[in-house]
Amino acid sequence: MSVLCLPGLIDPHVHVRDLGQAHKEDWDSATAAALAGGITTVLAMPNTQPPIVDAAALTAYEQAAQARARCDYGLYLGAGPGNVGGLAALAPRAAGLKLYLDATFGDLKMDTLDLLAAHCAAWPADAPLLAHAEGNNLAAAILAAHLAGRAIHIVHVSRRDEIELIRAAKARGFAVTCEVCPHHLFLTLAGSGLPAGYVEVRPRLAAAADAAALWANLDVIDCFATDHAPHTRAEKEGPNPPPGYPGLETALALWLTAVHQGRLTLEDIIARMHTGPRRLFNLPEQPDTWIEVDPEQEWTPRGAGLFSRAGWTPFEGWPLRGRVTGVTLRGQRVYDGQAVLAPPGAGRNVRSRP
Amino acid sequence: MSVLCLPGLIDPHVHVRDLGQAHKEDWDSATAAALAGGITTVLAMPNTQPPIVDAAALTAYEQAAQARARCDYGLYLGAGPGNVGGLAALAPRAAGLKLYLDATFGDLKMDTLDLLAAHCAAWPADAPLLAHAEGNNLAAAILAAHLAGRAIHIVHVSRRDEIELIRAAKARGFAVTCEVCPHHLFLTLAGSGLPAGYVEVRPRLAAAADAAALWANLDVIDCFATDHAPHTRAEKEGPNPPPGYPGLETALALWLTAVHQGRLTLEDIIARMHTGPRRLFNLPEQPDTWIEVDPEQEWTPRGAGLFSRAGWTPFEGWPLRGRVTGVTLRGQRVYDGQAVLAPPGAGRNVRSRP
Repeated sequence: MSVLCLPGLIDPHVHVRDLGQAHKEDWDSATAAALAGGITTVLAMPNTQPPIVDAAALTAYEQAAQARARCDYGLYLGAGPGNVGGLAALAPRAAGLKLYLDATFGDLKMDTLDLLAAHCAAWPADAPLLAHAEGNNLAAAILAAHLAGRAIHIVHVSRRDEIELIRAAKARGFAVTCEVCPHHLFLTLAGSGLPAGYVEVRPRLAAAADAAALWANLDVIDCFATDHAPHTRAEKEGPNPPPGYPGLETALALWLTAVHQGRLTLEDIIARMHTGPRRLFNLPEQPDTWIEVDPEQEWTPRGAGLFSRAGWTPFEGWPLRGRVTGVTLRGQRVYDGQAVLAPPGAGRNVRSRP
Repeated sequence: MSVLCLPGLIDPHVHVRDLGQAHKEDWDSATAAALAGGITTVLAMPNTQPPIVDAAALTAYEQAAQARARCDYGLYLGAGPGNVGGLAALAPRAAGLKLYLDATFGDLKMDTLDLLAAHCAAWPADAPLLAHAEGNNLAAAILAAHLAGRAIHIVHVSRRDEIELIRAAKARGFAVTCEVCPHHLFLTLAGSGLPAGYVEVRPRLAAAADAAALWANLDVIDCFATDHAPHTRAEKEGPNPPPGYPGLETALALWLTAVHQGRLTLEDIIARMHTGPRRLFNLPEQPDTWIEVDPEQEWTPRGAGLFSRAGWTPFEGWPLRGRVTGVTLRGQRVYDGQAVLAPPGAGRNVRSRP
């Protein structure tokens, strides 16, 4: 068995669901899934129950993560109509500020240019600002950030016109960065084979031409994120299936399989799952931290075997090549290829003072 | 009676309705209304029946205007999903290309960033490009045009966040211009007093703070346009009232009343109803052309007395001060304060070769 050592991976887009929706996932299960996927830092989204839109909710989630997280973590704040003036003071404790300009899970969608411009102006220019923004809203987010004299990160880009706009904006010097998710590169709406309910995700799966455009524009993609968004099988099979896929435990293996197929290099992965997100989100170094990977191991993900409480995966039964065989975080062996060894509470907040 | 002489005014935003909807207005009635309002050039929108989206429709409307227009005119083309590649060749015959990014009268609304970017790239950079774009779509239109290396004109700006974004974009050097309509400065949704049906217009009437913001940002407003959009009383009182107000015969008097009140200067009007639109839309000089105005005449518009077939006005009974008493176009007296003297067919296409 050959072994590759890679730096601890960073996933800048994870839905942890703790507090009000812990039946889907909590800090314990989410960070166990992360470590099993080779991810030693997760940045968690604010569209939780309750949403992370003020100091009280931020404190509650900080405490939950401190008690239960097995890997390192950060917490995003969510922008809304009622908190334009109140978030800047919380910036030192937050991974960043998330703007929801398009339909998603939860109630944080902002509908007005007024709010978009106000949040871009009020949030500190040196703190990360992220937007779920599709189509014309993507263009609006880039311009609003530019006019506020600040950078913006576009999450889970999924379509050809969007990645081409980002390419054009970068070429013209706009301070925009972006991430893509495995499911938008490896799945298409017509070809996923996922049953109704399970197929629901936001942004939706797109056309083969969209996935091809993402592959063709890898050079303008700064991060690979999972948008790990767990919902239970019962919820996905119910009358109102919520959008989202689990992804922490399959992402690296999908990218490694692409390396094996000659579509990516290992350097591409490290740049987008470690160096890129670490720089974009101002993350501290994790000393004595690495992951071990067997690049030749063939395996198939099974929902029943996941650490995530979702209990299913959109990549069920896929023939993958490359698997995490061990994770060491700050000198401690925290995953051995079978079991997560780090206890709940072992993780650190990326914004805590040393 | 004092008399002011002003240059022939230009209205860059008029819905003429000829061919399929001539019962609302045609080139004869629309241009009679224009001359009675002191307007010697109208640029006509393409959301007609049939819409002006190809060479055949453009030719049909050119012929209709040539036969019936009493003042000078230009014709906009409309962007749609099926004509990205086919419009550039028609640019020399068109006043410009209109993009509809928000809900309006007719079927020309474009829903995708893909189409927005494609039309911005395909339309000649030296030909006028206009967008009905509200809120985030406004920001998207400005960025898309910028990335295509071209200017864009935003029609009928109505809200505070929009005019403030345009101010910020202009300050940063973006090639964006804009127009406002009298009804968004003189009327508000809460205060218009217009009955349901009659009040419908796109963009909708806004709040007092929005109107105040337009007044406060006059220095970034390049044109005053009417968005003259006639519908009959029966249609406005029907079950599905179409959006739009007639405006050609009241606009100048409203602005002159504002001059009398000290809110504007005559130079402000000339800059936005002659110099600005002439430059933005590359319009030829009209030699020996002027309008005469009695700046002190007090009068009240009455729908029943309009040349427009709409037969009503949102400013019914308003006490206005300042009225057109005569119009001379290319040395011919075409309006005498009572009657329109120019016959149908006297107008010229602004894009015709001399």
